[in-house]
Amino acid sequence: MFDKFHDECGIFGIFNHEEAARYAYLGLHALQHRGQESAGICTDDGERLHVQRVMGLVAENFTEDVLQKLPGRTGIGHVRYSTAGGSHPKNAQPFQITFSMGQIAVAHNGNLVNAGVLRRQLESQGSIFQATMDTEIFVHLIARSKKPTIEERIVDACRQVQGAYSLLFLVPGKLIAVRDPFGFRPLVLGKHDGSWVLASETTALSLIDAAFVREIEPGEMVVIQGDNELQSMQALPAAPHRRQCIFEFVYFARPDSFLFGHNVNEVRKRMGEQLARESGVAADVVIPVPDSGVPAAIGYARASGIPFEMGFIRSHYIGRTFIEPTQQIRHFGVKLKLLPVRAVIEGRRVVVIDDSIVRSTTAKKIVKMLWDAGAKEVHMRVSSPPTISPCYYGIDTPTKSELIAATHSVGEIREMLNATTLAYLSLEGMIAATRADGDSFCHACFSEQYPIPFPYDCSAGSCGCSDPDVCQRSSDRTP
Amino acid sequence: MFDKFHDECGIFGIFNHEEAARYAYLGLHALQHRGQESAGICTDDGERLHVQRVMGLVAENFTEDVLQKLPGRTGIGHVRYSTAGGSHPKNAQPFQITFSMGQIAVAHNGNLVNAGVLRRQLESQGSIFQATMDTEIFVHLIARSKKPTIEERIVDACRQVQGAYSLLFLVPGKLIAVRDPFGFRPLVLGKHDGSWVLASETTALSLIDAAFVREIEPGEMVVIQGDNELQSMQALPAAPHRRQCIFEFVYFARPDSFLFGHNVNEVRKRMGEQLARESGVAADVVIPVPDSGVPAAIGYARASGIPFEMGFIRSHYIGRTFIEPTQQIRHFGVKLKLLPVRAVIEGRRVVVIDDSIVRSTTAKKIVKMLWDAGAKEVHMRVSSPPTISPCYYGIDTPTKSELIAATHSVGEIREMLNATTLAYLSLEGMIAATRADGDSFCHACFSEQYPIPFPYDCSAGSCGCSDPDVCQRSSDRTP
Amino acid sequence: MFDKFHDECGIFGIFNHEEAARYAYLGLHALQHRGQESAGICTDDGERLHVQRVMGLVAENFTEDVLQKLPGRTGIGHVRYSTAGGSHPKNAQPFQITFSMGQIAVAHNGNLVNAGVLRRQLESQGSIFQATMDTEIFVHLIARSKKPTIEERIVDACRQVQGAYSLLFLVPGKLIAVRDPFGFRPLVLGKHDGSWVLASETTALSLIDAAFVREIEPGEMVVIQGDNELQSMQALPAAPHRRQCIFEFVYFARPDSFLFGHNVNEVRKRMGEQLARESGVAADVVIPVPDSGVPAAIGYARASGIPFEMGFIRSHYIGRTFIEPTQQIRHFGVKLKLLPVRAVIEGRRVVVIDDSIVRSTTAKKIVKMLWDAGAKEVHMRVSSPPTISPCYYGIDTPTKSELIAATHSVGEIREMLNATTLAYLSLEGMIAATRADGDSFCHACFSEQYPIPFPYDCSAGSCGCSDPDVCQRSSDRTP
Amino acid sequence: MFDKFHDECGIFGIFNHEEAARYAYLGLHALQHRGQESAGICTDDGERLHVQRVMGLVAENFTEDVLQKLPGRTGIGHVRYSTAGGSHPKNAQPFQITFSMGQIAVAHNGNLVNAGVLRRQLESQGSIFQATMDTEIFVHLIARSKKPTIEERIVDACRQVQGAYSLLFLVPGKLIAVRDPFGFRPLVLGKHDGSWVLASETTALSLIDAAFVREIEPGEMVVIQGDNELQSMQALPAAPHRRQCIFEFVYFARPDSFLFGHNVNEVRKRMGEQLARESGVAADVVIPVPDSGVPAAIGYARASGIPFEMGFIRSHYIGRTFIEPTQQIRHFGVKLKLLPVRAVIEGRRVVVIDDSIVRSTTAKKIVKMLWDAGAKEVHMRVSSPPTISPCYYGIDTPTKSELIAATHSVGEIREMLNATTLAYLSLEGMIAATRADGDSFCHACFSEQYPIPFPYDCSAGSCGCSDPDVCQRSSDRTP
Repeated sequence: MFDKFHDECGIFGIFNHEEAARYAYLGLHALQHRGQESAGICTDDGERLHVQRVMGLVAENFTEDVLQKLPGRTGIGHVRYSTAGGSHPKNAQPFQITFSMGQIAVAHNGNLVNAGVLRRQLESQGSIFQATMDTEIFVHLIARSKKPTIEERIVDACRQVQGAYSLLFLVPGKLIAVRDPFGFRPLVLGKHDGSWVLASETTALSLIDAAFVREIEPGEMVVIQGDNELQSMQALPAAPHRRQCIFEFVYFARPDSFLFGHNVNEVRKRMGEQLARESGVAADVVIPVPDSGVPAAIGYARASGIPFEMGFIRSHYIGRTFIEPTQQIRHFGVKLKLLPVRAVIEGRRVVVIDDSIVRSTTAKKIVKMLWDAGAKEVHMRVSSPPTISPCYYGIDTPTKSELIAATHSVGEIREMLNATTLAYLSLEGMIAATRADGDSFCHACFSEQYPIPFPYDCSAGSCGCSDPDVCQRSSDRTP
Repeated sequence: MFDKFHDECGIFGIFNHEEAARYAYLGLHALQHRGQESAGICTDDGERLHVQRVMGLVAENFTEDVLQKLPGRTGIGHVRYSTAGGSHPKNAQPFQITFSMGQIAVAHNGNLVNAGVLRRQLESQGSIFQATMDTEIFVHLIARSKKPTIEERIVDACRQVQGAYSLLFLVPGKLIAVRDPFGFRPLVLGKHDGSWVLASETTALSLIDAAFVREIEPGEMVVIQGDNELQSMQALPAAPHRRQCIFEFVYFARPDSFLFGHNVNEVRKRMGEQLARESGVAADVVIPVPDSGVPAAIGYARASGIPFEMGFIRSHYIGRTFIEPTQQIRHFGVKLKLLPVRAVIEGRRVVVIDDSIVRSTTAKKIVKMLWDAGAKEVHMRVSSPPTISPCYYGIDTPTKSELIAATHSVGEIREMLNATTLAYLSLEGMIAATRADGDSFCHACFSEQYPIPFPYDCSAGSCGCSDPDVCQRSSDRTP
Repeated sequence: MFDKFHDECGIFGIFNHEEAARYAYLGLHALQHRGQESAGICTDDGERLHVQRVMGLVAENFTEDVLQKLPGRTGIGHVRYSTAGGSHPKNAQPFQITFSMGQIAVAHNGNLVNAGVLRRQLESQGSIFQATMDTEIFVHLIARSKKPTIEERIVDACRQVQGAYSLLFLVPGKLIAVRDPFGFRPLVLGKHDGSWVLASETTALSLIDAAFVREIEPGEMVVIQGDNELQSMQALPAAPHRRQCIFEFVYFARPDSFLFGHNVNEVRKRMGEQLARESGVAADVVIPVPDSGVPAAIGYARASGIPFEMGFIRSHYIGRTFIEPTQQIRHFGVKLKLLPVRAVIEGRRVVVIDDSIVRSTTAKKIVKMLWDAGAKEVHMRVSSPPTISPCYYGIDTPTKSELIAATHSVGEIREMLNATTLAYLSLEGMIAATRADGDSFCHACFSEQYPIPFPYDCSAGSCGCSDPDVCQRSSDRTP
Repeated sequence: MFDKFHDECGIFGIFNHEEAARYAYLGLHALQHRGQESAGICTDDGERLHVQRVMGLVAENFTEDVLQKLPGRTGIGHVRYSTAGGSHPKNAQPFQITFSMGQIAVAHNGNLVNAGVLRRQLESQGSIFQATMDTEIFVHLIARSKKPTIEERIVDACRQVQGAYSLLFLVPGKLIAVRDPFGFRPLVLGKHDGSWVLASETTALSLIDAAFVREIEPGEMVVIQGDNELQSMQALPAAPHRRQCIFEFVYFARPDSFLFGHNVNEVRKRMGEQLARESGVAADVVIPVPDSGVPAAIGYARASGIPFEMGFIRSHYIGRTFIEPTQQIRHFGVKLKLLPVRAVIEGRRVVVIDDSIVRSTTAKKIVKMLWDAGAKEVHMRVSSPPTISPCYYGIDTPTKSELIAATHSVGEIREMLNATTLAYLSLEGMIAATRADGDSFCHACFSEQYPIPFPYDCSAGSCGCSDPDVCQRSSDRTP
């Protein structure tokens, strides 16, 4: 479904390329689905870093003028999610500062669980923070480290943080990538005409015709410098099991991306097929909630033998703030984005496929629109398990109390939605559809099995604060 | 296919409604696919008309501030196509002027064939034109008419013009709709809580929960005034046969609209089914060129039994002017909008469905992308006949020399595209798929059978100009 | 005084110059004091006219980008006054249209008295007006004229209008200047490196180092074309007496300009000297209300022997809309613009010189500020006679009822201002200070002696309207 | 003269006032002449600080919208100079950060001489700087201080810096003002309806009708909190002699301000009188270079008996970036701002008064314009001594090599200017004109007598850098 989870980020880096800023721009465009609030690029002209950050979409805000201000052959970029509050230009990335060793820029995808504690410690020693994002923790730890080289200082900093991070650092002459020991968030390495490329997803490599080389490994640090020399080291020991985010498969990643070795579109279709097998129902038509529900709906239709149709038309012309009539039109907000095709729905038993249900607001409107369009039965099918718990590793889910499945049974939700039937994919079914080792995923949002406890220190009493909520609130949770 | 024909318009009107401007805004939003260059709304507060026109999308440019400047219970609106040149704020509609009878505004969908001649005649009598669009002809003819009432003056004006027009006029206290005798462009009447609504397509009625009442008939004039009193009259005798634009079914109209009594999505699916019957081929997968190719691809897949897949992902984040790398990346422009899903394509015999081929530039890139993604065979199928001739009735097609099918055989085009096979739907097959009376359509772009000759007067020598091209150029062809 | 009369215009033209647009820009900058609401330039590239109009100041809004869109060697420009209401981009000039003879642009300084009647006549014949300014009357009369040449059509049009006009017309290949038979508004001819220049005031010639040649005569038409060939003709017979606006000397014109043969700064000083002779008073210091009161104050100080001081500092940083505190600060609006220098005023008998008093609002605040700053006596002296009647020839004075001197005696005004004494310059004294033929001025605003009656036709009953006010209101009075 | 020295700042603070942000806005407007590059206001709502900074003028950029974002009853504001390079939003003030004790904001007028050394020390300890201005040094020193209260930490920080500073600090609940031990830059205390007000100049008090209370003393710290309780303490011992900037009298301060007990306008007139006594010349007219030369010219005229005239008209409509003709017009830049009044100058022996000559570029153009306007003799008189040395305490003078008087004798300068005669005011004459204790001024720019050596540490070898220039360059010199 559209506009469900806003909070993710995408990162991109390219080393020693004639058109570094322009390729960073293209890479970020390919990763735009991972964040639409702000975008930034930082380039290295060999002596100095140059940074440009804009609010809004890459293609609308990175104009030729802006790109002209980004000289150099190496660059990193970042796209960031969009939320109503908390959005502020100063939280846009890459984050670039000057410290005793000179300039450094960082682009970060992920979330630290001990950000609050670290920040308070640093401030008590006289550090001054500019923004409210976790990412700034890294640069303060690096600035205060006593190690002689930037690489050692980065390792020093990573040892002190706990949480999810795929990172790109830029210092004059060097591009450095790091991934946390659990491998929560993706990070891949590619090559374009001899230049190394790093990106959150392979779709960014595809767009620029770069070859996919491999994933960056959990705990790995890669340093690229000189004449494209790439040096890899194990910065931190990898965790016993990877904890790759399974929600990337469910919703986030672009269908053409290969993630942890598997194509996202194919996994989603298998999730739809598995859903049909687990929760089949007699019906006349299978329709997706576009665009994210399309592959699972194709899979469901195929496994069930029920015809696939586009029962909703998605509008491409939604502006930032749509003005609603004061006099009420039913389900207005959703109708602007999705308009039902009555000829497909009227008089039919409809299976409608969405990838997930978070708060249920949208799902309710969708079911209502189908009834209004004359559906005989409305069978809602969700191609992931109930979302019962927030994410602390880089996705800005609502709080537990806002997650409908955290507080209601499937039966209760069905009733609230006013659907004829409602079924979710099972946790096992979802994992099986990935065809990957089931033990390599983080699925805490579906299972409450958190690889790293959160709030990290408070639960252990180590931070000395009386109220764990304070710890949590003290850092804006997602870069 | 996206971005193929730019040149159409959409019109919307609402009479005596508490939130006239806001509903006009919603109506135009629903018609946004008919024109993205500019949009405008004119309202009548009972004494004076108020007009606001903006460049760009309705949802981005009609802000609350702008709507505040549109008081009144009656309004008309217009969306206009986007082209590179010729685009100018002064050509945005509704066009509103003051003349001896007071204020009048007009919103026009269509194109006149004798605009050039009429304009020269009017200028020689001392008329001063503000813009370059056909629409202004109407108001000058009305201003110079000697008839005593506005209704009679409008009829007087319509008698002098030749071509396609669906028109909405607004004068203080009255909303007037007129459709040309051939009924080239659609215009429907609806009702919302007792208020009359007029719109180019039924999708605008659906969005605001208005009931569809009927189409405005060819040659009909409808006058709405007072307490929602609607008066219909035959302004001009209807032509012996309607000449509704069949291209609305092929590409323009929104899939959920009902056009000339038939649902657009269903017609498109039947075109795909018919195409499969006419030009079947052994293949592994059927994929659409999104979004316009989707219904025909579903129809083709169903009729052929070959699985339907989304082989291209369409990006939702394309900005106005995308910056390309100077160093060439193959097929860049299209890749930004459509990215192939390699897992769907690789090693497969692919049937790719598009609704039409105009210049062939995009089709070439699509075939190339499929080969690059590892397709074993690429069978291009087009769900309409070859486009061989320009439109003079409201669609801004390229000139004949730019239409690939006007100058090349299907075999030559296949070769140019480098497709394994290429097939178009037959003219008869297309008409049959509409399930409407075949004699009620204008299909000049596919058949060269023009209901009204163009350039109108020059061919008859009546305008006295030596060069028909001048006539044609002398008016910006499409409102 | 600042911001007193807003409503004047300035015009500028240059023929066959390498940098026509750029010089028009400079010329308008020099004439900026004549109008700050909008500015426009129209150039002729030999084949087509190009026009750019902006709201606001020349120097802020005519950017390099805008100038780039003005190719050609000939151009005319216009600056227009600023008022709260009625200000609209479509009323900005030059006004440019296309009619049967091709393109024409016009820049107009002045006001017609029979605009309403002419407009109604034209509309009843089918003419459609775009804007609400008098200037458009000219182009409609020209478009409807049956004369064969543009020159004859312009004369034809001028014969039908009554009022004040200094006009510049631009058609491809020709620059034409016309001044009304009374010569109400100024218009001078200059030469710059062989190129002819036309401007409202000589200051525009000075800025660009052009030589002053002569004034355009009342009723004269000048046609410049080809290789700088200038042809003069008497378009209309000159009136028996010139009626040059004396208010240009009092307030409007820039001090360095030569007007009707006399330097404005010198005339203003003589007005101050004359005022001292007519209304001397024992005092310690003479201060001007800057900037317009400065020359008269210097003259007054010199003739009286009382020391001249700058008792008010004028701020250069006033923005468009200044935000006032909600809690009242006394005389706030004026204090932002003029701050009293207490050290100059305290304990002193002050003579304060302003050029005129219109509504008295500002004068009241000035007197109050002087008392607050510790003045012992406040003697207000005005270097023109009481303003008792509105202008119908190009200056947007308030209505008669708003003119304080129209309804109050000098004694009453003194009381309202709370000044120790108040004196105005006499009509004879003012005329004498010009050292010009006293019979050559229009001083209707001081004397009610109108050279052309207004409302023109109504007074004669010729327009057939029952309410003279309607006539007056039917045209926005000043270009 | 206009636009001569750009680099100064103005500060304003108000405690416990109903309209704190709005009064800060007014105060900054009154101080706008001290800096036009950027402006900022920070308010305290009792719990949190809110900051808004804009580029450009207060009146143009602090809109109602911006002020709405500044809740609270206490606020500080800052205006900053305008230079071409180095201008950057992140250097705008107030500078606001969060550190271990919470939020703090600072507004600074002045310049530190040991900024470079302190910055390097802090960075080597892990501090990260956001901007390039001296002001940030203060907050880092405060953040790292081990003292328990904010007041003690501020004193701790001030003990480590060397240079010129008038400072306003805002922390939730407290407004703190500090002035350096030499009292280089002005800072005054006032009262408005029971609320304390602080400002760089008394003109800001006048504008808001606040009463002047006293100057803040050198080395004094004032803490305002609670119910308008004001507590004063000697933060640092005052220097043996004050070193108030005499250039404030010559050029910077507004004429209506009282500075160090004397009215600026009166001092300037006395400088003119003294100049006439020191360097009289037979002439016909005395004219100022407006606006800053006006009071001295009035003084000169009075003492010499030669008539005062406004020989130049200053334009009020200069935009940010004026477009010049490519074809050369002589002295163009200056003519746009100052246009000579030929009638005043022609055939006369002219004394032209300016307040200072820095690079001589403008002076050259002024003399040339006077010759071009027909002057018989041009006697340039400068109401301050030759400027021979740069300022290190808050004014952005050019480097020594660019100061014309540093490298040329008065005779040589006269020749370069092509003036008939040239004379400067003597140092003694200037000091005498202030009527203040001559020992209480810093006049290093005229005398090279620097109260604090610069570069501070390098000259003493204490900073360990090999190149004093590096020290100097390492900090952007002026807040």
